[in-house]
Amino acid sequence: MPRERLGEFEFIARLLRPLAAGLPGAEGLGDDTAHLAPPAGHEIVVTTDALVSGVHFLAHHPPDLIARKALRVNVSDLAAAGCRPWTYQLALALSDDIDDAWLAAFCDGLAFDQREYGMDLSGGDTVSTPGPLTIALTALGVVPAGQSLHRAGAKVGDAVFVSGTVGDGALGLRASKGELGGAGGADVAALAARYLLPQPRAMLGPRLRGIASACMDVSDGLIGDLGHICARSSVAAVIDVEQVPLSDPARRAIERDAALLELAITGGDDYELLFTAPAAGRETIAGLAKEVGVPITEIGRIEAGDGVAVLHDGRELALERTSYRHR
Amino acid sequence: MPRERLGEFEFIARLLRPLAAGLPGAEGLGDDTAHLAPPAGHEIVVTTDALVSGVHFLAHHPPDLIARKALRVNVSDLAAAGCRPWTYQLALALSDDIDDAWLAAFCDGLAFDQREYGMDLSGGDTVSTPGPLTIALTALGVVPAGQSLHRAGAKVGDAVFVSGTVGDGALGLRASKGELGGAGGADVAALAARYLLPQPRAMLGPRLRGIASACMDVSDGLIGDLGHICARSSVAAVIDVEQVPLSDPARRAIERDAALLELAITGGDDYELLFTAPAAGRETIAGLAKEVGVPITEIGRIEAGDGVAVLHDGRELALERTSYRHR
Repeated sequence: MPRERLGEFEFIARLLRPLAAGLPGAEGLGDDTAHLAPPAGHEIVVTTDALVSGVHFLAHHPPDLIARKALRVNVSDLAAAGCRPWTYQLALALSDDIDDAWLAAFCDGLAFDQREYGMDLSGGDTVSTPGPLTIALTALGVVPAGQSLHRAGAKVGDAVFVSGTVGDGALGLRASKGELGGAGGADVAALAARYLLPQPRAMLGPRLRGIASACMDVSDGLIGDLGHICARSSVAAVIDVEQVPLSDPARRAIERDAALLELAITGGDDYELLFTAPAAGRETIAGLAKEVGVPITEIGRIEAGDGVAVLHDGRELALERTSYRHR
Repeated sequence: MPRERLGEFEFIARLLRPLAAGLPGAEGLGDDTAHLAPPAGHEIVVTTDALVSGVHFLAHHPPDLIARKALRVNVSDLAAAGCRPWTYQLALALSDDIDDAWLAAFCDGLAFDQREYGMDLSGGDTVSTPGPLTIALTALGVVPAGQSLHRAGAKVGDAVFVSGTVGDGALGLRASKGELGGAGGADVAALAARYLLPQPRAMLGPRLRGIASACMDVSDGLIGDLGHICARSSVAAVIDVEQVPLSDPARRAIERDAALLELAITGGDDYELLFTAPAAGRETIAGLAKEVGVPITEIGRIEAGDGVAVLHDGRELALERTSYRHR
């Protein structure tokens, strides 16, 4: 039996319409379409991420955090393209266990992060499913025409940089399942929070325009994602694993179990920005990091060839896997 | 056990990338984002529809038709806004029963209809689900700035028009389930085909700019959808049910079972254009119908007040329901 739940029209009117209030072209979600004019001289940038209950989040996770994660993984993609977030479309396939309280909390989460990232809802679709709750979110951003960042563009001689810390997402998933043996309560909480609620680098991404030669966000794992940049740019990369920035909880976990280092650099869900830039840009990048308040660490270099080599104490690590496969 | 299936990257490379070949800004789906510049002087129009196996289509339906339906229901929304289709994002949550042959046929269907409607794939996401196959498609169209059509705008004294024929979608669903007693094989096939593969009025929609005062597509049912136009326009509508255009198979079904008339006008999935226009525009509209090759029928008028009245032999019909609720 479905729980008590608003009908589609009431759900739209009461909970979704307020999320579209800042966007006149959304017409209060009163039409099937929204009409949107990007600012003059700008291109639009579009991206989609889908999340399935039991696969990308767990059913007992707080609905506001699920909503915010769905928005943030897309914001992270926009940031990696050097874009400013603009608007989003939301497709919800709701399972029978979703009730009004869940929907209200979910929409509260969207409202919170819309303000955080300067976005408005422009439309979507809500349907029922006999399967798990499924969320597909398509986000649109804007960028001055011709200035978006891409995976292609890394050049031999460029340095490789990454924002923030790497590995917290994958270790956080372990932690949130209670599978991070020996970790203290505060470390478990910090890592799990990082998995539950990514911190996309929305301010940093647009500032990398004209600085980064290639850019993407770390969603499939640092090494695998760097491999994507290399493949698109027809170059190779060498990473010094000692340079990869780790949070204190991640460092402690790896000190207890050295095998977790590989998970940290291949496990994904970090939503940090991974980018390349001419080595001569180091000082500019250091200044930008200070200005934006986001640590940026140089972790390697681009060479001729293909693939990603990971050096540890000067010797190449043989990794069992290079990225988490979402399918 | 999952059936034999391409990995995510191979699926993208072999089957999805060709669908993005016509759109340089999609970068061959090599990035997480696509960058798109709408033509000068145009707005973008965006819409999303989600389809769930077992709810919006059946698992045994041909995968190419499922793909084409997913695209076409969105094209229909763009047409109702007076827009030209442009590009789309595709989120797929794949169940274990989906194999490579299914995916190939699904992509063949997309390729076919992309050409039909002049669209290209710009990106999306593919994930696994333990539940039913779920498709969320976000379509973008373009329209000269300020000229898109809306549900709001119907004026007292306007006439109400609808394209094509009404009721085939709902009767087709019945027919495809074998629940249309007494119908001949050809009628069953014709109605079921109409349900399986909508015929969005992509050519007609943009031609209604400057002619229609309000417009939407019939997806929730003629009467319910006209109610949406009335609500958004703060007017009432009166429909002469004898004027509602029916296909020959639908007319025969209703002659056998008069109760099916209500299903035909409330049942939805027709994807015809329902619009209002000043009555003085009748001749222009008749000429347009001839030019585009799509029948357009005047079925009623807009009055002061609210709600939709349906007249049958001059008396008002009391309808049990006014629209199909998708949730």
